[in-house]
Amino acid sequence: CHSVVSVKPQLHSVSFPVAEKKKTELCQELSLQARDLRFQHSTSLTARNNCIIIRMASLKAILTPQSLLVLDFRGLGLDRWLVLELAPQLASQSHSLPFEFRALEAVLQHKLNTLQTRLNDVEPVILDTLESLVDPKILSADRSKLHILLQNSKSLSELETDIKVFKDSLLKILDEDEIIEELCLTKWTDPRVFEESSLGIDHAEEMELLLENYYMQAEELGNKTRELKGLIDDSESVIFINLDSHRNVMMRLNLQLTMGSFSLTLFGLIGVAFGMNLTTAFEDDPRAFWLVTGFMFLGSGLIWRRLLSFLGRHLEPSILRPVRKTLSSVCFSYHSKSLHRSVHAVSSL
Amino acid sequence: CHSVVSVKPQLHSVSFPVAEKKKTELCQELSLQARDLRFQHSTSLTARNNCIIIRMASLKAILTPQSLLVLDFRGLGLDRWLVLELAPQLASQSHSLPFEFRALEAVLQHKLNTLQTRLNDVEPVILDTLESLVDPKILSADRSKLHILLQNSKSLSELETDIKVFKDSLLKILDEDEIIEELCLTKWTDPRVFEESSLGIDHAEEMELLLENYYMQAEELGNKTRELKGLIDDSESVIFINLDSHRNVMMRLNLQLTMGSFSLTLFGLIGVAFGMNLTTAFEDDPRAFWLVTGFMFLGSGLIWRRLLSFLGRHLEPSILRPVRKTLSSVCFSYHSKSLHRSVHAVSSL
Amino acid sequence: CHSVVSVKPQLHSVSFPVAEKKKTELCQELSLQARDLRFQHSTSLTARNNCIIIRMASLKAILTPQSLLVLDFRGLGLDRWLVLELAPQLASQSHSLPFEFRALEAVLQHKLNTLQTRLNDVEPVILDTLESLVDPKILSADRSKLHILLQNSKSLSELETDIKVFKDSLLKILDEDEIIEELCLTKWTDPRVFEESSLGIDHAEEMELLLENYYMQAEELGNKTRELKGLIDDSESVIFINLDSHRNVMMRLNLQLTMGSFSLTLFGLIGVAFGMNLTTAFEDDPRAFWLVTGFMFLGSGLIWRRLLSFLGRHLEPSILRPVRKTLSSVCFSYHSKSLHRSVHAVSSL
Amino acid sequence: CHSVVSVKPQLHSVSFPVAEKKKTELCQELSLQARDLRFQHSTSLTARNNCIIIRMASLKAILTPQSLLVLDFRGLGLDRWLVLELAPQLASQSHSLPFEFRALEAVLQHKLNTLQTRLNDVEPVILDTLESLVDPKILSADRSKLHILLQNSKSLSELETDIKVFKDSLLKILDEDEIIEELCLTKWTDPRVFEESSLGIDHAEEMELLLENYYMQAEELGNKTRELKGLIDDSESVIFINLDSHRNVMMRLNLQLTMGSFSLTLFGLIGVAFGMNLTTAFEDDPRAFWLVTGFMFLGSGLIWRRLLSFLGRHLEPSILRPVRKTLSSVCFSYHSKSLHRSVHAVSSL
Amino acid sequence: CHSVVSVKPQLHSVSFPVAEKKKTELCQELSLQARDLRFQHSTSLTARNNCIIIRMASLKAILTPQSLLVLDFRGLGLDRWLVLELAPQLASQSHSLPFEFRALEAVLQHKLNTLQTRLNDVEPVILDTLESLVDPKILSADRSKLHILLQNSKSLSELETDIKVFKDSLLKILDEDEIIEELCLTKWTDPRVFEESSLGIDHAEEMELLLENYYMQAEELGNKTRELKGLIDDSESVIFINLDSHRNVMMRLNLQLTMGSFSLTLFGLIGVAFGMNLTTAFEDDPRAFWLVTGFMFLGSGLIWRRLLSFLGRHLEPSILRPVRKTLSSVCFSYHSKSLHRSVHAVSSL
Repeated sequence: CHSVVSVKPQLHSVSFPVAEKKKTELCQELSLQARDLRFQHSTSLTARNNCIIIRMASLKAILTPQSLLVLDFRGLGLDRWLVLELAPQLASQSHSLPFEFRALEAVLQHKLNTLQTRLNDVEPVILDTLESLVDPKILSADRSKLHILLQNSKSLSELETDIKVFKDSLLKILDEDEIIEELCLTKWTDPRVFEESSLGIDHAEEMELLLENYYMQAEELGNKTRELKGLIDDSESVIFINLDSHRNVMMRLNLQLTMGSFSLTLFGLIGVAFGMNLTTAFEDDPRAFWLVTGFMFLGSGLIWRRLLSFLGRHLEPSILRPVRKTLSSVCFSYHSKSLHRSVHAVSSL
Repeated sequence: CHSVVSVKPQLHSVSFPVAEKKKTELCQELSLQARDLRFQHSTSLTARNNCIIIRMASLKAILTPQSLLVLDFRGLGLDRWLVLELAPQLASQSHSLPFEFRALEAVLQHKLNTLQTRLNDVEPVILDTLESLVDPKILSADRSKLHILLQNSKSLSELETDIKVFKDSLLKILDEDEIIEELCLTKWTDPRVFEESSLGIDHAEEMELLLENYYMQAEELGNKTRELKGLIDDSESVIFINLDSHRNVMMRLNLQLTMGSFSLTLFGLIGVAFGMNLTTAFEDDPRAFWLVTGFMFLGSGLIWRRLLSFLGRHLEPSILRPVRKTLSSVCFSYHSKSLHRSVHAVSSL
Repeated sequence: CHSVVSVKPQLHSVSFPVAEKKKTELCQELSLQARDLRFQHSTSLTARNNCIIIRMASLKAILTPQSLLVLDFRGLGLDRWLVLELAPQLASQSHSLPFEFRALEAVLQHKLNTLQTRLNDVEPVILDTLESLVDPKILSADRSKLHILLQNSKSLSELETDIKVFKDSLLKILDEDEIIEELCLTKWTDPRVFEESSLGIDHAEEMELLLENYYMQAEELGNKTRELKGLIDDSESVIFINLDSHRNVMMRLNLQLTMGSFSLTLFGLIGVAFGMNLTTAFEDDPRAFWLVTGFMFLGSGLIWRRLLSFLGRHLEPSILRPVRKTLSSVCFSYHSKSLHRSVHAVSSL
Repeated sequence: CHSVVSVKPQLHSVSFPVAEKKKTELCQELSLQARDLRFQHSTSLTARNNCIIIRMASLKAILTPQSLLVLDFRGLGLDRWLVLELAPQLASQSHSLPFEFRALEAVLQHKLNTLQTRLNDVEPVILDTLESLVDPKILSADRSKLHILLQNSKSLSELETDIKVFKDSLLKILDEDEIIEELCLTKWTDPRVFEESSLGIDHAEEMELLLENYYMQAEELGNKTRELKGLIDDSESVIFINLDSHRNVMMRLNLQLTMGSFSLTLFGLIGVAFGMNLTTAFEDDPRAFWLVTGFMFLGSGLIWRRLLSFLGRHLEPSILRPVRKTLSSVCFSYHSKSLHRSVHAVSSL
Repeated sequence: CHSVVSVKPQLHSVSFPVAEKKKTELCQELSLQARDLRFQHSTSLTARNNCIIIRMASLKAILTPQSLLVLDFRGLGLDRWLVLELAPQLASQSHSLPFEFRALEAVLQHKLNTLQTRLNDVEPVILDTLESLVDPKILSADRSKLHILLQNSKSLSELETDIKVFKDSLLKILDEDEIIEELCLTKWTDPRVFEESSLGIDHAEEMELLLENYYMQAEELGNKTRELKGLIDDSESVIFINLDSHRNVMMRLNLQLTMGSFSLTLFGLIGVAFGMNLTTAFEDDPRAFWLVTGFMFLGSGLIWRRLLSFLGRHLEPSILRPVRKTLSSVCFSYHSKSLHRSVHAVSSL
């Protein structure tokens, strides 16, 4: 049992009689077959026995030459559309063409607005998320943003499919002139109105223009979604390069420090050796302490410097030279100057 | 030798006489050629000598104007379909169109249900697996889930191929009006029934609508599989970014600790130096121990701090600042306060 | 100069007279032009002056209404095919259609078998290689297997191209009814045989069915290669995720150990400090040794524990908790129990 | 209310009368319908009632047999085009074809120039950026360059869409001969001029050539953008391989140093052992110090060497051998020669 | 002003009169329009007023029924082609078809040879580079080879575009029978020659065969470039897996060494503790030194072993077991045997 609102244009207004009708009643009334009102596909637009049967997702409608019957309109946000948008569009008399043109235009415009709205919802979120994800300062991708991106690119895929289905259903009609002719209801039902209203205007041609117009608008939407998908792909590449770059920079720093630690360990071994409880000839030489200590620090510094320059030559860096310089300057200031002064320097950091 | 069940609709029921027939017998009976019953392709639908020969994967059937012969129906799950689904569909008299329409619809619906079932099997598993794989908390991808994903995306590819083959076989018929005419068996065999049943109904047009309907349903299935494939691709990118991000965060922590170790080793060398069995002037100075020890800890702390801030400036982090702060606060609390109090603090963690 | 075997079906056998003929002789005999026998394209099937000129890779053949001439058949594995497969196929009298149908079917079947054999060679190798490469237990991809995979996916690409070329050459014929008519040699050369053999059978239609049949079989092969290519792509993604996961797990373990080393170094510095040859107040305090040693081990243990729990909270692990626990339990058992007992425990591992 | 400039060619010059007209005035003047002047699509070219209505992005124009009306031309950079380019093109009398051909050519050329300019803006930036990003010496990708690349590949996608839309709008006309006929305004309005100007020239054919020419130029632009996109993809792969290679080289160096540190720590333990305040038999042996110290350095050197050669065999390196040699030669020179001489050597680096 | 060579076949030779002609002269001579000689597109083949105007990249030619005019032939490598290849091809009398066929064939063959040469230049370089890049022994990709690969895959893309453009220009002709008719110049200009030369030969059909032949050869070239592109993609995946595998192996080795260092540091702390200048009860116990030293080495060895087996179980390795064994056997041989004997063993490596 369907709740049916039949939108009928009157002289200056539009009436909205609502009725509860059974499917069979509807069929009898419009002399359609039960099969015609199954609305099996999510998007369809077919002419049957001087009615146009339309389904655009949640909107199910039957268009007769006199009225537009909207089925199951409750609770799907269609109520607002019926009153706020459909009524004014159908009431406007500016249109020189018969009712079915105005009604079909309203329905297709509604579908296109729905698609556009979905794109408008998804696009800024994706652009914002990508903007913050490709930020080169970011060391690691924000995980919640990745989740948002995934959700929205899923929505985008669904939108893409829906646009494609909408385009295909229009294209199928545009490809067959007979179906276009069938869609011009007034031409067949009311020859008098047809002749009057259309002095020199070919209804079928007008219908083709109307459908083509919406086809091209859907195509533009489709182009936008495709560009957005491409942008997501490109951005993902940039995110990967960014993360990899950060990793390389950190690995280089790590390697530089490992080189330093290696040098210190190597020369520290001398200190360890002199710390053994074994007899050396230097126990009582007062200069030995300073000589060996100096050699330890100086030697490890020089080896580190040599390793760093080896790494520098090996990787031929371009940006990272300063890093190395900063590090080694920090380090060498400790043994070239006296210890007291360097303590001073450090405490003033 | 084939086991053949010939499903014949009767007044209010459907009979299922089962017989074992040789291929040659079948050919003679239906005046077909041996070649016609080879069923070479996994999906085919052809009209031959007033019979429709159908193969849909495991289902091999010959449709005559009076009955539907199902071949080799045993052991393939077709028995249940025959009794539970096919019989009611064929017995229903609501359909105003002749037998071959009802039978063809039943067969195509069976095929579509099979495809839909396969998608329904695969889809939730893939969605669940992806859901748990893109979980940003996960440090490493669960290997068993990857295996499940691979298995299911293989099934999805096969399903995609089968949907494509099904669509192509329908499209081939829809593209040629002659074949559609041939499929309307009653029109040619029983003109009386044809005239009676179809007042104003064009059988060929009805057949086209029927096939088109299933074509569009298959298209919808195809769209869903394509979206699912896209989702897998998108999710894989997100998994990679997640794993890379985790790696970068860990590498940063590692680098921060390496910096700490480096500082400690550098200043530890002073301790090692004073541990050597060599003569220094400070052996008996009671303040020397505290001065040198303090210098070791303080110096390494300051150098670490300087290295961390260098890293901070170098990578311009945004999220990870707290990490550094936590670490250095943990560390500095040890030498700025007395040792006893920090032991206290640590034991209260 | 070509070696030509002309396969002629006789009453119950097939004769194989072999001859060496010049190109010009061949042309004169069959009234063809020199240009027609250039066999420029790797796959072609053309009708010329009541002959069908066929090239399928290495197989070059001219089909006349009475015989099939195979050119340059030596040394290409064609000999075996000629005797073992072609002869029986041509000799069989079951076929109600004239000679050119049987010969064409044999040639196309030969081509299809070649393609199928190549797929059968490549498919199991690829499946096996992928199976072992996506094994989640593997830490690093086996390099020899990667090489095998690359070789086989190259073969697969070549096979894909060959299937496409074969399909295109059939499609080109199927798209033009005139060419199909020309291929029915008997129809034009021997009207008497034509009338006799074909009561109610349209040769052109039969030819179309024959070609379509092979087209669809080639399409099925093409679908399989495409699925295989998709599987390779999917598996590569899984391999990458696997390798990345392993890396993350190892990096986490490494980080946990670095944290341990850092803690030990930090508190080891205290030991180093007390090892300096400087005067402290504790030299003779017998408890000092145990207090400081205990503090060293306990302190580093606690700091490590704190760092591990920080890492745990930071990365929110799900699987790796046990690892941490195992590690820390190993570690803490050393300083919470007496040294002698832990030595006991370790030696019983 | 539109500002309209109507460009009319005169004997040797072009006049530019500017007027402010309402949409309705325009419609009346040209007997068009309001709907025709909505300019809904970003690119359109339609013939209506002996006018050609053109929209090419910001350029909105109506072409009548006598003049070209450009709408809303202010502030969009169209002014310069009108005076500097359009005027000379329209004034030139060399063209033997009527006015609408010259005007249409000017408009299409303007569109094509716009597209070409956009490509010329984007191409060198992309090539430069890629050139510097794929530089193998670079350790980490320059982040600002990645940003530039992303911006420009987005522009490239938009340009690709616009070229596609332009091509589609031309193709739609080229596919329908009727529309081409309608575009030849003079043919229908001024038969006398038509006959005079075109002795033996078919206007429709000329129009087709003109449109085809611009279609092919747009195709060439499209090919260039596609090649550029492919180059970006290929370069990204190379960048990834570069970054990965650098990482592997650094990781190998790091591993080599870790091996060194491990060896030093292992043998340093001996020194630590001898440093314990425990009684050994060697305290007073004057050779013991040198023996143990020598063993420490020599042992760690040998173990390191063994580990390096193990790594060498394990990874079968080809390029990195020198690295290992350099490192170990640096290291071994320290204990094979006397300490004083090596200090000499180091200070001369 | 163009330098024009007009190649005219004579009885047994070909004459090459060279002339400098203005565009207008050329137009008058051949009664063409200025527009026809603009050669705007890089590849075009059009019939105009009984001339065929050809542009194939640098080759610009006008084919009349009697001669082939090659324009601007100097300095582009066309001179050699004119003398060495074109002349013999045009002079050969074997061809039974009129001059324009021979000339067109020569021009198309020239174009195809150019394309083939470019592929032959690029293919071996790409195959070689890939061969050396996917070498599993390579730790890091050779950067110069990556550069070569990038250069060549850019060339390959350009070649692909050119092949596509060439194919499209032939296809455009093949799709329209009228254009093919127009290309048969002799048929229209010299009916007598036409009748004489072509007894039973349809010129248009011959022309179609000729163009189709070159179309198919271009298609084969296109297939090869596509396969090559696929091979590059597949190889890049293998390179990535290779690099990642190497990294994992190195990271595992690194982790194993870090485990060793950790164990040594942990037990080295005991040595450090005993090295403190604090009173222990063991100072004078002669066994204490050996006990503690033994415990240090043994303990760290056992902990390392335990950590390695933990890692082994955790990652379930398959190939790397030997590595671990080698490492631990190296290590354990040091404390299970006497020190002197292990020195022996090491020095014999």
